[in-house]
Amino acid sequence: MEIVPAALTRLINDFCRLPGIGKKTATRLALHIMRRPEVEAKELASDLAELHSSIRLCSNCFAFSEDDPCVICNDPKRDKHFICVVEGPGDLMAIEKTGVFKGLYHILHGVLSPMDGIGPAEIKVDALIQRIKQGNVTEILIGTSSTVPGEATASYLIERLKGVVTVSRLACGIPLGMDIKYADEHSLAHSIESRKNQK
Amino acid sequence: MEIVPAALTRLINDFCRLPGIGKKTATRLALHIMRRPEVEAKELASDLAELHSSIRLCSNCFAFSEDDPCVICNDPKRDKHFICVVEGPGDLMAIEKTGVFKGLYHILHGVLSPMDGIGPAEIKVDALIQRIKQGNVTEILIGTSSTVPGEATASYLIERLKGVVTVSRLACGIPLGMDIKYADEHSLAHSIESRKNQK
Repeated sequence: MEIVPAALTRLINDFCRLPGIGKKTATRLALHIMRRPEVEAKELASDLAELHSSIRLCSNCFAFSEDDPCVICNDPKRDKHFICVVEGPGDLMAIEKTGVFKGLYHILHGVLSPMDGIGPAEIKVDALIQRIKQGNVTEILIGTSSTVPGEATASYLIERLKGVVTVSRLACGIPLGMDIKYADEHSLAHSIESRKNQK
Repeated sequence: MEIVPAALTRLINDFCRLPGIGKKTATRLALHIMRRPEVEAKELASDLAELHSSIRLCSNCFAFSEDDPCVICNDPKRDKHFICVVEGPGDLMAIEKTGVFKGLYHILHGVLSPMDGIGPAEIKVDALIQRIKQGNVTEILIGTSSTVPGEATASYLIERLKGVVTVSRLACGIPLGMDIKYADEHSLAHSIESRKNQK
């Protein structure tokens, strides 16, 4: 005998497919939505239904965008000679939030992962090479994560772009505001090796 | 300049309204849905849109249900003289999962919280009294949480039902499988005071 109404079970199962959401959280979310006014559920439903149709990929940098080219590629104040290569749209958002980077982006939409069958052809590497060849690009900042696949992707790009363009990478070290005695040993080791001379 | 597409921002804000979901998690969920096939977003959207219209409250126990009375109230194998009073539908699900309780439920849809203006009239207390008066109820098991508002609600119900019907409460103590040295002191104190004599 199924005591949970089928409509609620369907919603719980939908939520379970989202990353980091297990059965308990999914149930809590579904029950919360059930308790709230119907208009809120309808609003979330229509925003979900319209998501894919109103967002496309920028044909230049592959960012999620409503227009093509996207607002960043279209911005005359951006430095078109400086491109930051990131894994996904979330990384772009994180870097934009700093307000420090004034160039353009290139979204790979993935990282190299031979075990999962993801090679250079599966991510937007060729399009990056094309952009570099076509445009007047002077520097590529590799902004992949400092994870194993992120590092592998960075190494591949550095090798491939050698002699073509200036390549830089995000600096690694201890986070700002971090108490040194709680820093992880790898970050601390890296920050010692990469120490900066003070003038 | 808004670099995040409006449709994505709307969805992120929708997710932020759900309990336990902050800006970062909401962004991760929205980007995940964006990366997955459109059909999945549409499925979630339609399940959300249909939720409220396909679920009502059982007029007897106030559980979320597709039919009225709900499957539990309608089940001839259930003991109609034994009612478990819980705060919300999630508590009903948790108790049903144990498979131990064979009576009916009564969902209060809230707990007493005078600070928030929630008194007995705001939760389904009068309906419970009505059920007890009308039906041949022999025992009320109070299944409110052992939190401050849960305890307050339990005390109120015990007082109100005194002399009317047999009232019992869920036992408190240390969780099964718990190492005593890691048990919280209040649960441990309670389990000592409520120790059971072994025959």
